[in-house]
Amino acid sequence: MSQRVRVHLFSVSRDGYGSGEGQSLDHPFGHIDPGVFHDWAFSTAFLAGDPEKPGSRGLDDYIVRDYSRNIGAEIMGRNKFSPYRGPGESESWQGWWGDDPPFHTPVFVLTHFPRTSITLSDTTFHFLNSTPEEALLMAKAAANGKDIRIGGGVATIRQFLEAELIDEMHIAVIPFDAGRGERFWNGPGDLYDRYHHEKVASLSGVTHHFFWRRV
Amino acid sequence: MSQRVRVHLFSVSRDGYGSGEGQSLDHPFGHIDPGVFHDWAFSTAFLAGDPEKPGSRGLDDYIVRDYSRNIGAEIMGRNKFSPYRGPGESESWQGWWGDDPPFHTPVFVLTHFPRTSITLSDTTFHFLNSTPEEALLMAKAAANGKDIRIGGGVATIRQFLEAELIDEMHIAVIPFDAGRGERFWNGPGDLYDRYHHEKVASLSGVTHHFFWRRV
Repeated sequence: MSQRVRVHLFSVSRDGYGSGEGQSLDHPFGHIDPGVFHDWAFSTAFLAGDPEKPGSRGLDDYIVRDYSRNIGAEIMGRNKFSPYRGPGESESWQGWWGDDPPFHTPVFVLTHFPRTSITLSDTTFHFLNSTPEEALLMAKAAANGKDIRIGGGVATIRQFLEAELIDEMHIAVIPFDAGRGERFWNGPGDLYDRYHHEKVASLSGVTHHFFWRRV
Repeated sequence: MSQRVRVHLFSVSRDGYGSGEGQSLDHPFGHIDPGVFHDWAFSTAFLAGDPEKPGSRGLDDYIVRDYSRNIGAEIMGRNKFSPYRGPGESESWQGWWGDDPPFHTPVFVLTHFPRTSITLSDTTFHFLNSTPEEALLMAKAAANGKDIRIGGGVATIRQFLEAELIDEMHIAVIPFDAGRGERFWNGPGDLYDRYHHEKVASLSGVTHHFFWRRV
């Protein structure tokens, strides 16, 4: 089976934004509290950290558990890796995720300002100044025959969508209006010409959208 | 994390039957065509066999892919393993699944008529004349720390439910009335006192019910 290019667990506000305005070190999602985008996932049994609150085991949990299934590499944008813009990022910046990032595979960071690769636990970040097509070739070669996750942010996913490189996509629509920020879409209808679409509402209030490429 | 006891991908008719009437070698689900219970699963990308019809990649596909996740052993009833009733099953009967059964773990078959274990590819069937509690102890010991799937049929799942041994359950309700057969439930409400419940409808017409034990 061929390697597939997938977006998984990407959260978008009801009004179509994937991030707020003004990302910074203290505000990784800009004016929006990151919890707004992620609390639904951390309320599942798979990710819940508190033994007193064991988390749900319904639809959200199924979807969250699938995050790493058959993934051999991730491609992300520099804006997901770092709060810095332009050159001048300190080499001491090693991402938002601490000593044990949740990727556990090679990660290719698309940036105009490449730097030396970093290994943290079983995740290695490589920095590439390249096109989506070139990055995808490298990621596929590194993924041991497994799939590639396109990890975001908004600009990176849109770039891969425009280049028609994405095979399937899971988008979680959060019941919250961001008002402003980085726009991901007008709505799922933007993609109907190229993708099959299924939409299911979960108990948490999140609506899960699945897309898979028309053959 | 402790080993969980799970039911997964168990299909039930809209009117609550898990099998038809009159199971036999030619009619494993009795008067109901097995396709009625299983076609939805074989229409997913994960199980679709025909490259011309690549299958869906929405909710049904997610759920089907999860069938083997972290499962280390299955327990099934003799009526799932065999069309024979009572003693006198031929030792040449090796189950419905051919040379490479889809379990790939130890499988414990509850029966009043034990026989010698059988290994087919990476599945080994053991035959036990024991209580659900005893079978579960053996399955847990064999599962290498992973979860136990209670594979059916109806009588076996009901027995484990009554013994309060099941932690979580996925039931697929098929848009079809069986009229008669082996009754699984009156409806999901039978379980609300002991389980959390979430219900989601998929594009295929199947409704997925998730249950997880109240703590």
